[in-house]
Amino acid sequence: MTKVGIVGGTGYTGVELLRLLSQHPKVEITAITSRREAGLSVDELFPGLRGKVKLKFSNPDEINLQKCDVVFFATPNGVAMQQTEKLLDAGVRVIDLAADFRIKDVPTWEQWYGMKHASPSLLMEAVYGLPEINRKKIKTARLVANPGCYPTAVQLGFLPLIESKAIDLDHLISDVKSGVSGAGRNAEIHTSYAEISDNFKAYKAAGHRHLPEIKQGLSNIAGKLVNLTFVPHLIPMIRGVHATLYAKLTTNVDLQKLFENRYASEPFVDVMLSGSHPETRSVRGSNFCRIAVHRPQGKDTVVVLVVTDNLVKGAAGQAVQNMNLMLGFNEMLGINQIALIP
Amino acid sequence: MTKVGIVGGTGYTGVELLRLLSQHPKVEITAITSRREAGLSVDELFPGLRGKVKLKFSNPDEINLQKCDVVFFATPNGVAMQQTEKLLDAGVRVIDLAADFRIKDVPTWEQWYGMKHASPSLLMEAVYGLPEINRKKIKTARLVANPGCYPTAVQLGFLPLIESKAIDLDHLISDVKSGVSGAGRNAEIHTSYAEISDNFKAYKAAGHRHLPEIKQGLSNIAGKLVNLTFVPHLIPMIRGVHATLYAKLTTNVDLQKLFENRYASEPFVDVMLSGSHPETRSVRGSNFCRIAVHRPQGKDTVVVLVVTDNLVKGAAGQAVQNMNLMLGFNEMLGINQIALIP
Amino acid sequence: MTKVGIVGGTGYTGVELLRLLSQHPKVEITAITSRREAGLSVDELFPGLRGKVKLKFSNPDEINLQKCDVVFFATPNGVAMQQTEKLLDAGVRVIDLAADFRIKDVPTWEQWYGMKHASPSLLMEAVYGLPEINRKKIKTARLVANPGCYPTAVQLGFLPLIESKAIDLDHLISDVKSGVSGAGRNAEIHTSYAEISDNFKAYKAAGHRHLPEIKQGLSNIAGKLVNLTFVPHLIPMIRGVHATLYAKLTTNVDLQKLFENRYASEPFVDVMLSGSHPETRSVRGSNFCRIAVHRPQGKDTVVVLVVTDNLVKGAAGQAVQNMNLMLGFNEMLGINQIALIP
Amino acid sequence: MTKVGIVGGTGYTGVELLRLLSQHPKVEITAITSRREAGLSVDELFPGLRGKVKLKFSNPDEINLQKCDVVFFATPNGVAMQQTEKLLDAGVRVIDLAADFRIKDVPTWEQWYGMKHASPSLLMEAVYGLPEINRKKIKTARLVANPGCYPTAVQLGFLPLIESKAIDLDHLISDVKSGVSGAGRNAEIHTSYAEISDNFKAYKAAGHRHLPEIKQGLSNIAGKLVNLTFVPHLIPMIRGVHATLYAKLTTNVDLQKLFENRYASEPFVDVMLSGSHPETRSVRGSNFCRIAVHRPQGKDTVVVLVVTDNLVKGAAGQAVQNMNLMLGFNEMLGINQIALIP
Repeated sequence: MTKVGIVGGTGYTGVELLRLLSQHPKVEITAITSRREAGLSVDELFPGLRGKVKLKFSNPDEINLQKCDVVFFATPNGVAMQQTEKLLDAGVRVIDLAADFRIKDVPTWEQWYGMKHASPSLLMEAVYGLPEINRKKIKTARLVANPGCYPTAVQLGFLPLIESKAIDLDHLISDVKSGVSGAGRNAEIHTSYAEISDNFKAYKAAGHRHLPEIKQGLSNIAGKLVNLTFVPHLIPMIRGVHATLYAKLTTNVDLQKLFENRYASEPFVDVMLSGSHPETRSVRGSNFCRIAVHRPQGKDTVVVLVVTDNLVKGAAGQAVQNMNLMLGFNEMLGINQIALIP
Repeated sequence: MTKVGIVGGTGYTGVELLRLLSQHPKVEITAITSRREAGLSVDELFPGLRGKVKLKFSNPDEINLQKCDVVFFATPNGVAMQQTEKLLDAGVRVIDLAADFRIKDVPTWEQWYGMKHASPSLLMEAVYGLPEINRKKIKTARLVANPGCYPTAVQLGFLPLIESKAIDLDHLISDVKSGVSGAGRNAEIHTSYAEISDNFKAYKAAGHRHLPEIKQGLSNIAGKLVNLTFVPHLIPMIRGVHATLYAKLTTNVDLQKLFENRYASEPFVDVMLSGSHPETRSVRGSNFCRIAVHRPQGKDTVVVLVVTDNLVKGAAGQAVQNMNLMLGFNEMLGINQIALIP
Repeated sequence: MTKVGIVGGTGYTGVELLRLLSQHPKVEITAITSRREAGLSVDELFPGLRGKVKLKFSNPDEINLQKCDVVFFATPNGVAMQQTEKLLDAGVRVIDLAADFRIKDVPTWEQWYGMKHASPSLLMEAVYGLPEINRKKIKTARLVANPGCYPTAVQLGFLPLIESKAIDLDHLISDVKSGVSGAGRNAEIHTSYAEISDNFKAYKAAGHRHLPEIKQGLSNIAGKLVNLTFVPHLIPMIRGVHATLYAKLTTNVDLQKLFENRYASEPFVDVMLSGSHPETRSVRGSNFCRIAVHRPQGKDTVVVLVVTDNLVKGAAGQAVQNMNLMLGFNEMLGINQIALIP
Repeated sequence: MTKVGIVGGTGYTGVELLRLLSQHPKVEITAITSRREAGLSVDELFPGLRGKVKLKFSNPDEINLQKCDVVFFATPNGVAMQQTEKLLDAGVRVIDLAADFRIKDVPTWEQWYGMKHASPSLLMEAVYGLPEINRKKIKTARLVANPGCYPTAVQLGFLPLIESKAIDLDHLISDVKSGVSGAGRNAEIHTSYAEISDNFKAYKAAGHRHLPEIKQGLSNIAGKLVNLTFVPHLIPMIRGVHATLYAKLTTNVDLQKLFENRYASEPFVDVMLSGSHPETRSVRGSNFCRIAVHRPQGKDTVVVLVVTDNLVKGAAGQAVQNMNLMLGFNEMLGINQIALIP
């Protein structure tokens, strides 16, 4: 059994890693850390894990994570970059679910994340963990930067269009909507039930941290800078990301075939039938990404609809997918659950 | 007291009319019809009205609506166009909350609504009931076509930009989201709680009936045809419409001032402070429309955020606003409630 | 116009007072305090109040509340008892929406609220503000202790049964359920959206602070100690309390008539038709309390179903009702809104 | 591989059977019927099953279910009793998730279900499928009556108390709450989103069909008739049942130990730590039943809190558990998933 550790296990990506890894047939969770909850049984904080996870939270200062084969960081931004080098030196593979290694350009990272980067050299080495683009590199990576939830959905939605040079790259529009778990497990008024329920709003229209990550990814695909307007919204629901993407078509391509062909061999990307509208619950608890492509009234605007579960394909599930690739396991191992409907 | 009648009082726009009109100081509801519920006390169907509304539903065949001063149609599409002429002939003013008189072009209407129009001549006479555009005409109208919920939000959002010729009219994008009450009070699986809750999806991306209504309205403002992509989504919440509008700027205008000036004297349009993100609950139960305008990263894409309560400013409240105008009342009479928060 | 002040205006009872008082025809809100938000426009914190409330939050140390005719405390427990005496001495009437003056027995209060009572003598003077029991005393009170949300519902449900000596007082059961706004507007993980939504649980089964308040009230009605089991639950919704009350009948009484007669002249208590099941939304935003009484299978257990809006009849609405009584206004003034449905 | 068929696969218990059985390592779903949807791909109706279930719905008249080893009825009440005899004669084992075989007394069944029973003799043979009570009988049964969702929760909650003669059997109180999926996947106004959301109510306080089922079960445990008041409520959430049970203690027993001992070897019943409050999401998508027992203020009333997922332990999961027992499989096979949190 492969030994895995989780740093920062009290947030939603942490508990989702616990759900997936504790059911994974080839790994054993040997450590989970939390400074605040050290000593507490994991199942006391998350009673849904009673009978399934017997670990206690460890103080990160008192546990030797170097004995793990793989360490997942499910921490706030800025933690993984402090600790990764030492783990890599000890031969541990690292998957960071936070943003520390996602953006290659140091000044851009520092501008959006408001701190100095502690490990610029690792930032260069880190492989961006979107298997649909970087599968080969991920297989040999020591350090994987797991993509953000919005960037996963938006990149998978634009990918076939950009690769095939079918759209104008100067006016991409990404209207994205997320369930509240994307904001993490924190004590804040603005994510409290009575504020969120029966309510809908945009936020950070002026600029969200996922914007530079998406622009970097799309520009890499395009081989030149793309220009993207990105407006996130908060949905009164727990899990799920829905991206509605708009672009101006520059060629007359069979959009349905384009998407089907691009993703024909992808285990976790489902191109739906023409005319479909994917719903977020169809991937609730699942690692699937479902996509539908539309061309309303046959005009020159293409509309792509993308759904993922922000905690699975948008975080913990994709992290396990990356781990499977890094360790040479079947890519779907342990993350092949069916969505929970209703 | 002005005598008002409601045709079709068992849907959500009907019960919202009841809420607003029964608290209106200058009107008396003298009739409410429902073929199916004839004879039933209104407050037995809607216990929230106990002690407030004493009416029973009448059979539409057995009641003389010609004694009313104003009749509201809160019926499915296709009903008002059958009955309006007779009422107008009797001197009754008519406000239709359905779509029968919204679209001037008969073939377009018949294509989108799938039936023959019964009253094309009245269609010409009907005034489109968006006071922010047609206030003067509404004051003298016999017949008002009350706008749809999406069209109200989208038109109010684009209006200042189009009037001022600030945007490219060929690639307008309207990503709209609605609470479920917009689908009406019907027995259908796809709007049942277990299907909607904790779920989000787009629908009718290929074409929604509000598209031709919006295009007509925006084209009228522009004085030429506009081109609009319109994708509606369903939010797991009861009330509220959120429109996120995107357009390419063609001039360098002070967007905040443009919106503030245009709506300075509008009693029900609130242009929020620069940088704001209006939330739907801020207009829950209220006739207000709140708007914020953004220009992300200072690029050439303008983003307009618009919220309304689909049952108030998007339906019954706007109908009462139109009635107030038609009868020479203070425009805010009876529809000046504060939003219910939380 | 009567001048009213609100101490602690940033919580849900505070903003609900703002909604009701700003629409009240006979009062003017002259002050609202918040130490944390001093200087901020009220409508910046609560955009739903834009155009309706022009006040700013004042620092409580810098404002003279003694100029008010009535002061409402919408503060955490323990604040009102520090400041009330001075206000009363200045001739101001005080209504406390917190728990400071609800329980007459000082040791009991101190045990459940975990602090020393600062003003035991006022505790004796304070009138418990449940108009259906204490209307006469409220009219002449200087200081009113506004009841808790659960106590309002539970006492109104048991009242006719206890007054008529129809039930065994030794085994009263009160299974109550509340929407999340009852927990206040606070930054806490356990009331965050992703924790509450699609979830249901009991809490504080071992003992909730409203238990001694209810026991005091029911015992006063009975003229002897009653014994009550009280289990609260958290509903994934914003507003509303539902109490399901169980008791053993000791006499054979016409329950429907008993309730109808008791509440025949109460403006805000609605005894529904026999066989009804009141729903919380039927009082959403309204000061009504709706009650239905059942005797399943004709056995000796009576079941009473009670709903209120915890922020209106369970807090701010009842406070305004008490103010109306204290000032000799019509009891329904400013709190006669219709519930918002759907 | 064991061949299983599902009759009536378009409801929520049907689709939940699909989720569980398609992931079960020892069975193959060979048939799923639906008269209305015959010919349609299952994954077109339930897109969440895309890539997981390749079946089409069959017309029940055109498929030979006798080739199955096990047939599940996920049909409305009254269907299974028509078809079971023929299947049993062919050697097929039958598990009915509807109510046809739950109540032994024919007149009682006919009174509550409003139809004549088509197969009284099978009703005698059928084994009531609550493994915690009938495990031995289930193992050898040809026909299992899968319990209702409320009866599962209420019986598991009262079982240790009744077996140990610790409570007064004349005044049991069961205040139960259910998510909306318990009402099935039907087109009805009263379960539509805008009616259910942000709302809470009791229903069928006068008598619910699960009452006679529970009374039969509890009376069997007690060896004499029990008397139960049973009031169900509707929670605005999708999945989950919460039972709050009240009884008068007649002996002084260590309640925590009593429950822990009774369920020590039960794989799917989790007695939580003393003082706990189980939450429904802790079993969302899981076959677990979690229980906590309280004795508020040390008085003579015991309070038991029970949660299950109504579609899993309350329906499809328990059906698979019964199948596992009938076929000699490990009881937990295929139903050992971790709850989905958040």
